[in-house]
Amino acid sequence: MSKIPVGVLGATGMVGQRFIHLLADHPWFEVTSLAASDVSAGRPYGEACHWVLPSALPEKVRKLTVQPVESLPDCRLAFSALPSEVAGRVEEYLADSGLVVCTNASAHRLDGDVPLLIPEVNAEHTALIETQRRRRGGQGFIVASANCSATQLALALKPLHQAFGLRQVSVVTMQAISGAGYPGLPALEILGNVVPFIEGEEEKLEAEPRKLLGELEDGKVRSAPFQVSAQCNRVPVRDGHMECVSVQLGRQASLEELIAALEGFSAPPEVAGLPGSPPRPIVVSGQDDRPQPLRDLDAGEGMSVTVGRVRACPLLDFKFVVLGHNTVRGAAGGAIHNAELLVAQGWVS
Amino acid sequence: MSKIPVGVLGATGMVGQRFIHLLADHPWFEVTSLAASDVSAGRPYGEACHWVLPSALPEKVRKLTVQPVESLPDCRLAFSALPSEVAGRVEEYLADSGLVVCTNASAHRLDGDVPLLIPEVNAEHTALIETQRRRRGGQGFIVASANCSATQLALALKPLHQAFGLRQVSVVTMQAISGAGYPGLPALEILGNVVPFIEGEEEKLEAEPRKLLGELEDGKVRSAPFQVSAQCNRVPVRDGHMECVSVQLGRQASLEELIAALEGFSAPPEVAGLPGSPPRPIVVSGQDDRPQPLRDLDAGEGMSVTVGRVRACPLLDFKFVVLGHNTVRGAAGGAIHNAELLVAQGWVS
Amino acid sequence: MSKIPVGVLGATGMVGQRFIHLLADHPWFEVTSLAASDVSAGRPYGEACHWVLPSALPEKVRKLTVQPVESLPDCRLAFSALPSEVAGRVEEYLADSGLVVCTNASAHRLDGDVPLLIPEVNAEHTALIETQRRRRGGQGFIVASANCSATQLALALKPLHQAFGLRQVSVVTMQAISGAGYPGLPALEILGNVVPFIEGEEEKLEAEPRKLLGELEDGKVRSAPFQVSAQCNRVPVRDGHMECVSVQLGRQASLEELIAALEGFSAPPEVAGLPGSPPRPIVVSGQDDRPQPLRDLDAGEGMSVTVGRVRACPLLDFKFVVLGHNTVRGAAGGAIHNAELLVAQGWVS
Amino acid sequence: MSKIPVGVLGATGMVGQRFIHLLADHPWFEVTSLAASDVSAGRPYGEACHWVLPSALPEKVRKLTVQPVESLPDCRLAFSALPSEVAGRVEEYLADSGLVVCTNASAHRLDGDVPLLIPEVNAEHTALIETQRRRRGGQGFIVASANCSATQLALALKPLHQAFGLRQVSVVTMQAISGAGYPGLPALEILGNVVPFIEGEEEKLEAEPRKLLGELEDGKVRSAPFQVSAQCNRVPVRDGHMECVSVQLGRQASLEELIAALEGFSAPPEVAGLPGSPPRPIVVSGQDDRPQPLRDLDAGEGMSVTVGRVRACPLLDFKFVVLGHNTVRGAAGGAIHNAELLVAQGWVS
Repeated sequence: MSKIPVGVLGATGMVGQRFIHLLADHPWFEVTSLAASDVSAGRPYGEACHWVLPSALPEKVRKLTVQPVESLPDCRLAFSALPSEVAGRVEEYLADSGLVVCTNASAHRLDGDVPLLIPEVNAEHTALIETQRRRRGGQGFIVASANCSATQLALALKPLHQAFGLRQVSVVTMQAISGAGYPGLPALEILGNVVPFIEGEEEKLEAEPRKLLGELEDGKVRSAPFQVSAQCNRVPVRDGHMECVSVQLGRQASLEELIAALEGFSAPPEVAGLPGSPPRPIVVSGQDDRPQPLRDLDAGEGMSVTVGRVRACPLLDFKFVVLGHNTVRGAAGGAIHNAELLVAQGWVS
Repeated sequence: MSKIPVGVLGATGMVGQRFIHLLADHPWFEVTSLAASDVSAGRPYGEACHWVLPSALPEKVRKLTVQPVESLPDCRLAFSALPSEVAGRVEEYLADSGLVVCTNASAHRLDGDVPLLIPEVNAEHTALIETQRRRRGGQGFIVASANCSATQLALALKPLHQAFGLRQVSVVTMQAISGAGYPGLPALEILGNVVPFIEGEEEKLEAEPRKLLGELEDGKVRSAPFQVSAQCNRVPVRDGHMECVSVQLGRQASLEELIAALEGFSAPPEVAGLPGSPPRPIVVSGQDDRPQPLRDLDAGEGMSVTVGRVRACPLLDFKFVVLGHNTVRGAAGGAIHNAELLVAQGWVS
Repeated sequence: MSKIPVGVLGATGMVGQRFIHLLADHPWFEVTSLAASDVSAGRPYGEACHWVLPSALPEKVRKLTVQPVESLPDCRLAFSALPSEVAGRVEEYLADSGLVVCTNASAHRLDGDVPLLIPEVNAEHTALIETQRRRRGGQGFIVASANCSATQLALALKPLHQAFGLRQVSVVTMQAISGAGYPGLPALEILGNVVPFIEGEEEKLEAEPRKLLGELEDGKVRSAPFQVSAQCNRVPVRDGHMECVSVQLGRQASLEELIAALEGFSAPPEVAGLPGSPPRPIVVSGQDDRPQPLRDLDAGEGMSVTVGRVRACPLLDFKFVVLGHNTVRGAAGGAIHNAELLVAQGWVS
Repeated sequence: MSKIPVGVLGATGMVGQRFIHLLADHPWFEVTSLAASDVSAGRPYGEACHWVLPSALPEKVRKLTVQPVESLPDCRLAFSALPSEVAGRVEEYLADSGLVVCTNASAHRLDGDVPLLIPEVNAEHTALIETQRRRRGGQGFIVASANCSATQLALALKPLHQAFGLRQVSVVTMQAISGAGYPGLPALEILGNVVPFIEGEEEKLEAEPRKLLGELEDGKVRSAPFQVSAQCNRVPVRDGHMECVSVQLGRQASLEELIAALEGFSAPPEVAGLPGSPPRPIVVSGQDDRPQPLRDLDAGEGMSVTVGRVRACPLLDFKFVVLGHNTVRGAAGGAIHNAELLVAQGWVS
């Protein structure tokens, strides 16, 4: 098939750059439009953008003229890396205009008829698109990917929720600096330091996994009934969020059953074949001192999460550590993965 | 009064060096003997020791001849920075020989008649010394200071335990590399990385706070009845352990009461006057993004812990962050503080 | 004597904060006025300033109302931490209005009648003030402190220039992130990285040492006749610039003579007694692997430079490494030191 | 053709591991033997080795039994990652026994009849093998790859030496921690610090480039007649050595000619086709702030060096910055590249 022309909103920012990088050789999608703020609009992308990724800026993208964010001509799908404060309005406008928007922004994540989507976790939530289309009266719609920390947590929780149910989840994060975008944190704030606060992050981490693991009922998602308590920290690591998690299950399980559930987890068939699906969504490590950002970041080319140190918890039932690649699975890679699912399910044509 | 002659066991290691540094201008103690392993014994300290602290090696210590660990002539008190594997035997031998041993090693921390001591937390536990002396049949005894992570946790928990009781404590640590001693972690393992494992640390952190906050009954310490669940991580920070803590209290309390208990906490009078006692054992920060190792490490010259981000917890009752100076309050500084208490209470003469 | 009331220009920036910190307990000066950009003017300093130093904001400064930069009422001397682009005009205006301005900005450093001053290096250059006052027709004047890298280089070169003459100086720097001010470098740019470029730095480092070591002739400074070649790099170090230097001398000297010149260097008597003068302006280390930012940064409370690895150079004559505290000696501390000299010499009254 | 069976000496160390990693899918070589010290010999490699690379240990290597270093049965070529203190004797013994040894150790680099080899720089130096074989009276011989810092310097100097001649080279390095092997530097020594000393490194960097760029005359290599002055520093970077270089040329050249020489440099035809040869041995960057380890390390899959900031030098003629991948081009990758050249030239059969 010929590739689907796609656009990137907020193309000059760091997540925008990662979209462009990850889409450079995508088998299904081809970047044909870029949009950014008024400062950049009208200029060639190569000039408008301060490219900060280690990989080179793809040549055919370099010459594209940056558009204003309201207009993405000739695209059938747009990836949004817009900053939250403008994402809400612009994405709404574009979806109302008939475009499919796969967004990484937080603005619409908790909207009732917007699927908050991770293909391996809740592919069936795309059913919300029907409702959303009815509201808009057209073919356009928004699908959101979750916060980076919430994404990797939800992936690790999915098999436990499925097999045993979940009652309580306690999570403390140690998050990489790339999660704050560019320029992000001044080096003076984080070199050799830990900052025990990330604006808005704990709220997202306490809410989003519940929607992600929620059940579809009468065209709505009912949030999963467990409670989450989150504490979020920034650490001097470039890429890769670590999460120390404790869980109380819905029913009793042995450590062996728990590990078996994690190791046995696989994507449903319609998801397993997507270009962005890793062989194993969850890699379980048996080594004492793993996962580590240094060693496990690239599992599944950044699309797998790695779980380790699975053991009993004296307070809740079990505890473990989850590592995910915050700028691949947790951002641009996740949104592209969602778009692949939409194509596979026939929502994009 | 003339100063009390003291010795340092394991004087060439990193904790040993910190003892020497912190004792350099101590008003009550004077270092007159140094002991280390056979490799170093017989040589002048300045030659035997690879001094790694930023501060200069005190001149009068440089020329002291290093002794074998079994002999500390002319001392009335010894600070032990011995490695765990030899500490057990050597400290026992020296205490049996009549010496007072203030140890930073873990070997005897949980022994029934050895006080595990933090002056502001459980000064009354020194009563165990009587029992211990009876066992030994002499004037010598061992007093232990707690693991660095356990020390700062116990300090933060003390006012809560006192005011409201404690049922459950969940703690995730982000610990500095200096906690691993010298040479400690290879730079290749931790630069830009997080390691989610520290040998033996979680066990100590789950056990020691309960003894520290335990009650003295019939000449024994009954461990406090709360449960602790710990997850320990190493982060690329030089000094200062961070702990994300959640607590369930024994009785209901408001956030204001909790903060008031933390802010109002002070040492008992016999402790407040010790040279090593900081003005406030617990400093409470109201800023969103504090405490941080970079900014709060030196509170109370490293003898205060800083508590911040006190807030409600959706699972337990409250959560907060504690920072402590792992090589001052959490190691040599804590053991010296204990020795000061022993002098004040008349156990050393 | 009662303290001299002084002001700080650009008080909310990082260098401004260091001025305030270093002046907090100064024996001769008292901060009575603060000035900053229009955004901050009119607000209490404690509110207008995002204080980023580890030490606490001094209480009596917290409540001072920030002034516009053109007005520093009741001050006899102002320290300027203004950004270069406004420093030129504002400092000129204030000096013309009769104020003594000790500036850390680069705008006027190379002006013919502005002394570029390091007390131990060229205290006699203050003679330029006469010429400058004549030009202005009043008592005000500007005295500049040099670029941080140039300052520590000039200090190390001074005794060599004095004893042997200098023909060529090759210098490669490894500079700390604090040199870039706040917010300075994004952590994403420098964590685990080296950036081989600092805007404008090489030009300063090639020009300023020549003026600093220049000779006063007929009321002008004739730049010293040696050539400097500089290459400047940013490294992930918080504070402390390292410089690898090679020199060709004006006359032959042995390694012993060179070291003796460095070790024997002392400030002239009028400088040695200033509050900011360290016991030894140059500390020479004989250890193979020194100086290091970690271990030698605070020599002379940040006012000494440390020189090490002095050895023969196969190309020029000798090579060595110099470390200096870029935010103390190399910035606010240096400017205050200059002001002390002005007081001692009677230029401020 | 069927693959050539090769062995790795010192297989359990960090360079040994990189040999194994880089040889895993090599088109010409297959690892069939591993040798290490007596502690490891006799055990399966997967058990004997503490694998520290981010990539997984190749499965077919995991089960190989580690041999003692004196015996590499069935190999026609051995890669040596032995520590210097044993490399001298063992490599000599194996070469005398008829084996081809491509070594990364320093022991034999400056031996008169041992080629110190970089394929793009001095492929013709393999002629020394004849002499060496005569000395040994057999088919075995040793070929050495250069020190990591010397390798990247020699590569960058080659086109300049060729086009203009070289008289003087001044170089200051900022070297990554991986260059020190494993465990290498304690994190406490280098996190947020710079260490201005690397044992033996300056001597190598001052000698090896002269042999590498030397001329073959009467079966000997006459060292190139330029002088090198080196200052070596360790910085908190994981991989990638940076070098600030100044050169004085043998004849006058313009900046444009110099850049053209660097950009136009290519490997001789017999080298260009080797599996390990990058498309361009030298990548020239025109950006002000490049090269950087973060962004340019993987140029040519780690086999290219990146040169940037080429500009005039006030003392010598020109200065520039070179970055190379110290553990690929500068270690295992370079030795494998040498072995490829030996095969191409018919020295291994």
